[in-house]
Amino acid sequence: MRSEILSIGTELLLGHITDTNASWLAQQLIPLGIDLFYVSEIGDNLERLTETIRRAHERSDLVVMTGGLGPTEDDLTRESIAAVLHETPIVDAQLATNLRAFFAGRGITMPERNIKQAWTLPSVTILPNPIGTAPGWWAEHEGKVIIAMPGVPYEMKRMWQNEVFPRLRPRTSDLLFTRILRVAGMGESSVEERLDDVLHSNNPTVATYAKRDAIDVRITAKAPTSEQAQALVADVEARIRMTLGQHIFGIDDDTPQSVILRMLMERGLTLATMESCTGGLLSSLITDIPGSSNAFRGGLISYATELKEAWGVPAEVIASHGVVSIETARAMAGAVRHQAGADVGIGITGVAGPDEQEGKPVGEVHIAVASPYGTRDTTQHFRGPRSEIKLRAAYTALNLLRLHLLQAEHQS
Amino acid sequence: MRSEILSIGTELLLGHITDTNASWLAQQLIPLGIDLFYVSEIGDNLERLTETIRRAHERSDLVVMTGGLGPTEDDLTRESIAAVLHETPIVDAQLATNLRAFFAGRGITMPERNIKQAWTLPSVTILPNPIGTAPGWWAEHEGKVIIAMPGVPYEMKRMWQNEVFPRLRPRTSDLLFTRILRVAGMGESSVEERLDDVLHSNNPTVATYAKRDAIDVRITAKAPTSEQAQALVADVEARIRMTLGQHIFGIDDDTPQSVILRMLMERGLTLATMESCTGGLLSSLITDIPGSSNAFRGGLISYATELKEAWGVPAEVIASHGVVSIETARAMAGAVRHQAGADVGIGITGVAGPDEQEGKPVGEVHIAVASPYGTRDTTQHFRGPRSEIKLRAAYTALNLLRLHLLQAEHQS
Repeated sequence: MRSEILSIGTELLLGHITDTNASWLAQQLIPLGIDLFYVSEIGDNLERLTETIRRAHERSDLVVMTGGLGPTEDDLTRESIAAVLHETPIVDAQLATNLRAFFAGRGITMPERNIKQAWTLPSVTILPNPIGTAPGWWAEHEGKVIIAMPGVPYEMKRMWQNEVFPRLRPRTSDLLFTRILRVAGMGESSVEERLDDVLHSNNPTVATYAKRDAIDVRITAKAPTSEQAQALVADVEARIRMTLGQHIFGIDDDTPQSVILRMLMERGLTLATMESCTGGLLSSLITDIPGSSNAFRGGLISYATELKEAWGVPAEVIASHGVVSIETARAMAGAVRHQAGADVGIGITGVAGPDEQEGKPVGEVHIAVASPYGTRDTTQHFRGPRSEIKLRAAYTALNLLRLHLLQAEHQS
Repeated sequence: MRSEILSIGTELLLGHITDTNASWLAQQLIPLGIDLFYVSEIGDNLERLTETIRRAHERSDLVVMTGGLGPTEDDLTRESIAAVLHETPIVDAQLATNLRAFFAGRGITMPERNIKQAWTLPSVTILPNPIGTAPGWWAEHEGKVIIAMPGVPYEMKRMWQNEVFPRLRPRTSDLLFTRILRVAGMGESSVEERLDDVLHSNNPTVATYAKRDAIDVRITAKAPTSEQAQALVADVEARIRMTLGQHIFGIDDDTPQSVILRMLMERGLTLATMESCTGGLLSSLITDIPGSSNAFRGGLISYATELKEAWGVPAEVIASHGVVSIETARAMAGAVRHQAGADVGIGITGVAGPDEQEGKPVGEVHIAVASPYGTRDTTQHFRGPRSEIKLRAAYTALNLLRLHLLQAEHQS
């Protein structure tokens, strides 16, 4: 199946936003065995949009569109698809009712121009969007499909997973099975070096992707049955696990935070954090996970040095070793266990930049974990801008805690 | 001048990389007054590449390409341009000498296939690339231009600035001036409604963009001189400021955090935060700003209810009103001023979801500010997933603090 992606919105052509939807969708097409030949970004212009959709519909079996489904006169995706298919939009009664109810629920009258979000076409199946006002379209015409989804990434991704993927899946011939192994504590090039022998295999294919929170190793196998595909993946997965060992912290949808929270809950442990250079990022990442309150008690952000002392870091530790030191990180991990009444404490101190501090270079970060099992710590030198150093420090802290809990398990 | 951007490389279509070159280039075209109508990503395939370049060259005055200039058989940008222009590549003697010298300097013999990086065409002016092996092409044919640059972002950006921009600048007649007004406390559709009369003007053009941290109103004017363009913008900016008033919190590169930190520093005030449902996100956003330690002292993340009490929220406030209440938010703002020795405190408590809490619905958030000038608070109902509710709550808190400081100023 030949496909292409169209991303709609003048804001893309003005460089206000980068088209991350297209690369995400490109990745989703691979396990379906759908070839992607073109990605295009087009502005909010009826003529150019219609011309581009028409060409895409002619030369490809599947056109996946995002954006242009809002209620304003600049949102022209519906009008353009209607023009390409030579159909006339009509108001779907159920959608119109939902839309008015949505506005009524917020105590406002729906502006009349919003009614176009309730439009449909004879060729169109509506794709529900329970978390936004723009439903999607699945337009099918002479065996070819045009899909239109909202441009808001989380609405688009949800619609893809719940509505689009299940409709595309039965149309692909071979079955695919994908397993993602999530890797921490190694760079992408080191992972690739160690996996050199499997990276050139054909079925399963193995590829690495550097994500914000981990390196992903994606194993994908094609086979006539699901069992055969799974068996092919399992074989390669076992080999990769032998090579990467404890660097693999999870699979598929696991995140460093979700894995840590699961490990803590399994052990009946609670966690608290004391952050300096990461400024609350670590606890914010942890509390992104639903149910984190079952293990996470809270945190201290001791940005000012006096607060480190007020919140339990001994003044003599700071005086002897400095605020940016492994000793201070250890004292922070211990102090917050006490302050927050938690089983496990994490302390982070470092130089996020742009200026050095106490003669320590930008990117130097000290991280410590303290728990009933003992302590573990690490000193790192990260590169990049301030936000990158904060992010690397937070994820390194999560990995440090994971290794600490695993080690405690093996010793007990 | 009509332009389009072509980004070349199968790795884009596999979703291995996101096309950040295109959005960077899009931004560079704006001040030159060059209209960008299409962005396309194409894989390493001679037929599709040639077809796409031919269409772009026909419908646009300027085609800006990145990628496909490497030495391998997958690098097909030169071959495709040659096919579109009906010209035959020849080896440029000087480039070939440079190329061999580059390899010799690294102590290796040049693989013969690399010679294509020394190719040129009769219509082509070579764009030097002193930091890589791939020179660029400026192909000019019947008044239309095709530019090919390397895909490596830092090589491409350097070539744009040193070689391409100086050649394009004399070709653009009008000068552009852009001003972004950053708006908080209103949704995009409300902003559009209030600005309805200016949104349809032509010069300057006015457009709104919903960003993660604000609604942007972008005013862009074209004129023969820079002064004239600025005057056109200033006139419309004054009208928009009359309409949106205090909702405008900054311009251009300002962020909600940078504005708050500037306001605090100007007033010699320090800040501390006590967060529940946002879990540290507010303090993480604040500490993303270099120099935030000049005003931000630190924060408490009281995820567990006992910690709210341990850190100064009176037990009777929680008992009477609940953890998720405006009274608790006010008590948190007051408590953290004391705990962190700060002039200003912010308290946030709410239901981030996915489950309701104390019978309060997901998305209900209470935010309070306490300072020497008094207090200010707000109750909001946000929608979306957990991470979205956290984000909206954090930015609403920053806006609440800004309005509080402005109000204090007017009263004094």
